[in-house]
Amino acid sequence: MNYSNLSLHTDKYQINMMYAHWMQGSLNKKSVFEAYFRKLPFGNGYAVFAGLERVVSYIQHLAFDDETIDYLRQQEEGYQEGFLEELRRFRFTGCIRAVPEGTLVFPNVPIIRVEARIFEAQLIETAILNFMNYQTLIATKASRIKQVAPHDTLLEFGTRRAQEADAAVWGARAAYIAGFHATSNLRAGMLFGIPTKGTHAHAWIQAHDTEEEAFAKFAEALPDQVSLLVDTYDTLKSGVPNAIKTAKLLEAKGKRLQSIRLDSGDLALISKEARAMLDQAGFPHVKIIASNDLDENLIMNLKAQGARIDVWGVGTQLITAADQPSLGGVYKLVAKEKDGDYEPVIKISGNPEKVSNPGVKETYRLLNRQSGRAEADYIALGSEQEPREGAPLLLFDPATPYRSKTLHDYESVRLLRDIYVNGELVYVLPDVETIRAYHESQLTLFRPEIRRMLNPEEYRVTLSRKAWDLKMELIHEYHP
Amino acid sequence: MNYSNLSLHTDKYQINMMYAHWMQGSLNKKSVFEAYFRKLPFGNGYAVFAGLERVVSYIQHLAFDDETIDYLRQQEEGYQEGFLEELRRFRFTGCIRAVPEGTLVFPNVPIIRVEARIFEAQLIETAILNFMNYQTLIATKASRIKQVAPHDTLLEFGTRRAQEADAAVWGARAAYIAGFHATSNLRAGMLFGIPTKGTHAHAWIQAHDTEEEAFAKFAEALPDQVSLLVDTYDTLKSGVPNAIKTAKLLEAKGKRLQSIRLDSGDLALISKEARAMLDQAGFPHVKIIASNDLDENLIMNLKAQGARIDVWGVGTQLITAADQPSLGGVYKLVAKEKDGDYEPVIKISGNPEKVSNPGVKETYRLLNRQSGRAEADYIALGSEQEPREGAPLLLFDPATPYRSKTLHDYESVRLLRDIYVNGELVYVLPDVETIRAYHESQLTLFRPEIRRMLNPEEYRVTLSRKAWDLKMELIHEYHP
Repeated sequence: MNYSNLSLHTDKYQINMMYAHWMQGSLNKKSVFEAYFRKLPFGNGYAVFAGLERVVSYIQHLAFDDETIDYLRQQEEGYQEGFLEELRRFRFTGCIRAVPEGTLVFPNVPIIRVEARIFEAQLIETAILNFMNYQTLIATKASRIKQVAPHDTLLEFGTRRAQEADAAVWGARAAYIAGFHATSNLRAGMLFGIPTKGTHAHAWIQAHDTEEEAFAKFAEALPDQVSLLVDTYDTLKSGVPNAIKTAKLLEAKGKRLQSIRLDSGDLALISKEARAMLDQAGFPHVKIIASNDLDENLIMNLKAQGARIDVWGVGTQLITAADQPSLGGVYKLVAKEKDGDYEPVIKISGNPEKVSNPGVKETYRLLNRQSGRAEADYIALGSEQEPREGAPLLLFDPATPYRSKTLHDYESVRLLRDIYVNGELVYVLPDVETIRAYHESQLTLFRPEIRRMLNPEEYRVTLSRKAWDLKMELIHEYHP
Repeated sequence: MNYSNLSLHTDKYQINMMYAHWMQGSLNKKSVFEAYFRKLPFGNGYAVFAGLERVVSYIQHLAFDDETIDYLRQQEEGYQEGFLEELRRFRFTGCIRAVPEGTLVFPNVPIIRVEARIFEAQLIETAILNFMNYQTLIATKASRIKQVAPHDTLLEFGTRRAQEADAAVWGARAAYIAGFHATSNLRAGMLFGIPTKGTHAHAWIQAHDTEEEAFAKFAEALPDQVSLLVDTYDTLKSGVPNAIKTAKLLEAKGKRLQSIRLDSGDLALISKEARAMLDQAGFPHVKIIASNDLDENLIMNLKAQGARIDVWGVGTQLITAADQPSLGGVYKLVAKEKDGDYEPVIKISGNPEKVSNPGVKETYRLLNRQSGRAEADYIALGSEQEPREGAPLLLFDPATPYRSKTLHDYESVRLLRDIYVNGELVYVLPDVETIRAYHESQLTLFRPEIRRMLNPEEYRVTLSRKAWDLKMELIHEYHP
């Protein structure tokens, strides 16, 4: 059982559609699919794209081996051998464009675009959405937490509550991209080069006769990395006084206690008292770490109460995005090959916001040259001229015409980069430090009103006049 | 980069505690840890244990290779080479006991018990909790859905919204254990032998000039497995009439249309009208599948409205357990080796429900011989005599003494089975069909009042008098 092969990490209906395309001879028809989401998670003003490295790794290894072919042969659909042979020869030969990881992204803006034989484009839909949806969700959640504690140290501690092993490591990576400083998950550390941090558990204390002895032994073993969990018995009566004794032991050896960790109780009150006790004992440099079901709301609340917490260990709420554990990213066919050209297609829905934007499109991020800030994302048809820098550009708002606006002094940046061209990987995946720095720089392009946690300003995403007209035309064609 | 090696799928603090035990020479001391959860998810009356197969696979492959050792050597902790050598020799030599997958489990009842050198027991905590927490959560969520639609077909459709790839496959397996009938994820199908199902996407329709042509071509390709998605343009005006045309084409060839799928709109209303149209056209056997952000509440509501839906495709809400995306399972030290014997240990907390139950324990499920129903789980110290069938047994409730109760005519079943004995796997992992059937049989042991979705009766979990006395004794020792 080749467990790491992801070729069958797809919905059965993709294979069934591939089969039907193969049967009717349309498997090689070109198609263009766009992946995007319709609604921002958590009421946030932006999302942080992540998942591209995983998508690339998936595409690079995408191949059907004997086990997967044998498995498909047993299906009740009774696929013909010729189809299975076609799968055995499968490799990705199409083009993928995507925004770089760490980019701020907004509803209805294509984040990933796949242009490929429909046979290929269908297969990869499920995995692309799975990776993009989860990792973008966690990067966005982490970014919210970063917004409320921009100068503190943020540690990702969620593995035991993550939704299985992949979520733990890819979630740790997404959090790091969005500004977290380290993870507790060593495998994530090894795979992605993310710094790792850890203290000790209650079990360390319980394994000793007394808390004082447990602390002293821990300090002996790891004199340069001592962080002590102080709430096993009684934080202020026992834990902090014993930690201070250990700090003194370390001091006598020329070493320093790094931090104490609070994991229960009234974190606002206890952190202030612990801070006072440490300061009074001459250990103002000892940091206070807090953990215990923290999220951005609780952290903001604790800070508002003047809690003296330097380092936040964030677990469950981050790694599962507990208040909204999925991003509803979709992957929609926008154009299909017809008579050697692309014909735009639309998906109609009873819900107006679910009607797709037809046609092969290009998205430009428009930056105000004066302020340096992003003004809008502008989605035009690929056949349209690129917005020329400086030429007046109408940001058209058909639903609320008085919001329409003309930009004059702007710079235009294409959001999508080439990742695969005709099956060749042409993109050099940046390392995680580069992505993290890029993300930080991207944040500064957006006004604070867009970045704030509560009731952010809505960032403008505009269809070009031509893209809008095409959409209206196709809607009328299907609903005359 | 050996991506599939899970030896570092752990929190750094485990490695730091292992190092400190190695440094102080206590690494070989025996310890007993119990894994359990404190609160049932979703307000449900029970949880369904899952995750054991994954735990066993993890333990079987648990080994530090060169890459993991090299990675640990680079850590800022500066681990000594002797420790890294110890890790290189690492293999699990302890004992693991667990309840079988599919068992109904309740708060504070040990689900997994690890008895091992503390060096080993610490390492595996994180992965055990990660697997148990997620898979038990999803099996429980799936079971709730099964409770509201016990006679319908249930399909797991969540991969694209799952929290990364592992969640998709292990979640699909957990759902199957709890009574779902199939998954869309082919990899889960291959790995675990779960039936797979799929229809087609809107893209199939969009790839053709008309819906009618798209349906006909799909039916041609897969004549024995035709399920048609009817909401691409207009469900009742276009989708269902075209599906009926396809059903007639199939009929002419001696084949049958299997089903239609509704994926948007008013599912109650549309399903009734679609049913009437299909029946009137002479296709009463064509099933109606519904999908679109379904969960147990929505399904119950649709059924209450008389919706004519035979098959439920459940995605996001199930695979992420959206209303509570984590189970708070914990892993607590309950006894440590001291002078060649076990000494019970406790974890005190300001929150009374977080105080652990000390000592090596055994749990018995007590079945009423008359009714055949489970009366209570009875947690006794391992040193106590097993409840003798028939001998009066006090179910002691110290907080509400009037709830105390004496059982007379009962049968007693040990919940924990041997999985590993001294490092040897002694348990034969059942296949998923066996687990699913076992789960179904287990459900019948519990009264409907415990199984109901809303405000279920609380199942009784009782500490023996001796286990309770030990707990009180240790609490007073630490808080005299």
